[in-house]
Amino acid sequence: MKTIVAEPLTRAAFAEFGDVLDTEGDTPRIINAGMTERFHDLAKVEAVGDDARVLVSIFRGQPYKFPLQLKMVERHPLGSQAFMPLSLQPFLVAVCADGSQGPLAPRVFVTKPGQGVNYHRNLWHAVLTPIGEKQDFLVVDRGGEGNNLEEHYFDEPYLIELPEIAHD
Amino acid sequence: MKTIVAEPLTRAAFAEFGDVLDTEGDTPRIINAGMTERFHDLAKVEAVGDDARVLVSIFRGQPYKFPLQLKMVERHPLGSQAFMPLSLQPFLVAVCADGSQGPLAPRVFVTKPGQGVNYHRNLWHAVLTPIGEKQDFLVVDRGGEGNNLEEHYFDEPYLIELPEIAHD
Repeated sequence: MKTIVAEPLTRAAFAEFGDVLDTEGDTPRIINAGMTERFHDLAKVEAVGDDARVLVSIFRGQPYKFPLQLKMVERHPLGSQAFMPLSLQPFLVAVCADGSQGPLAPRVFVTKPGQGVNYHRNLWHAVLTPIGEKQDFLVVDRGGEGNNLEEHYFDEPYLIELPEIAHD
Repeated sequence: MKTIVAEPLTRAAFAEFGDVLDTEGDTPRIINAGMTERFHDLAKVEAVGDDARVLVSIFRGQPYKFPLQLKMVERHPLGSQAFMPLSLQPFLVAVCADGSQGPLAPRVFVTKPGQGVNYHRNLWHAVLTPIGEKQDFLVVDRGGEGNNLEEHYFDEPYLIELPEIAHD
């Protein structure tokens, strides 16, 4: 089984897969008479289909044990999917570029406190994977008719380890 | 100056104005092989206009002092606006039904930990009003051409007080 050690999530490393939702790297707009900073338009939200609409939901995820066997990834052909943590705990972000035979080997990231992600439409990704404890997330994704889910099971699982710092 | 004491935010009291974003009152869907609860479709998201799209942003708001003089409210004719706190601090939610001469007297709420709100399109509301300390929010609203902001200044401000419990 191939082992992958998760790397820190950065905008540069994640750019080909989706958007990092955080307050680093952008200059905010100042609104509300100076009382509010607006870090503007962080995610490319997509909801394809005549009857499609953008949904706001809360996901409550149980934590996973590490090292973790990553057996499958999924993707949503009709919409993006954003996950913003409602606590400062980290979570795992595993994504795959698409190849001619299905998803390529995963790239695996661990978030910093306050970072969320938006998976672009049709990006292969692991299911929601909290680290350490139960976590709530605000989720922005797509509702409507049509099959918006594909799953892929790897021939052999990948073993995912956390970097040392995430063990603290 | 008329004084209004903020009341606890509940779904029933807020239903005529917008959506409460929380995990109470709904039975979640169980997904991801039992590891995730999905509290599904909590907000009516609207983004009107041919070129309009849904934006995801982070707002960082400074806290307001109480009692607070509420001098103005605003509304967005072309889209809804959701605010989900990224910490467990409360914030103030002041909204007004629309009358023939502009907004009626405010209804004023204070959130419980973990509650967010979605203001329906064209609802009069106060600007983002954190209580106690600086707070970050995930915001889901509308981007695109067209004038999406109206402001209304009251002839006389309202004095907003917090209930006793929010002083603790």
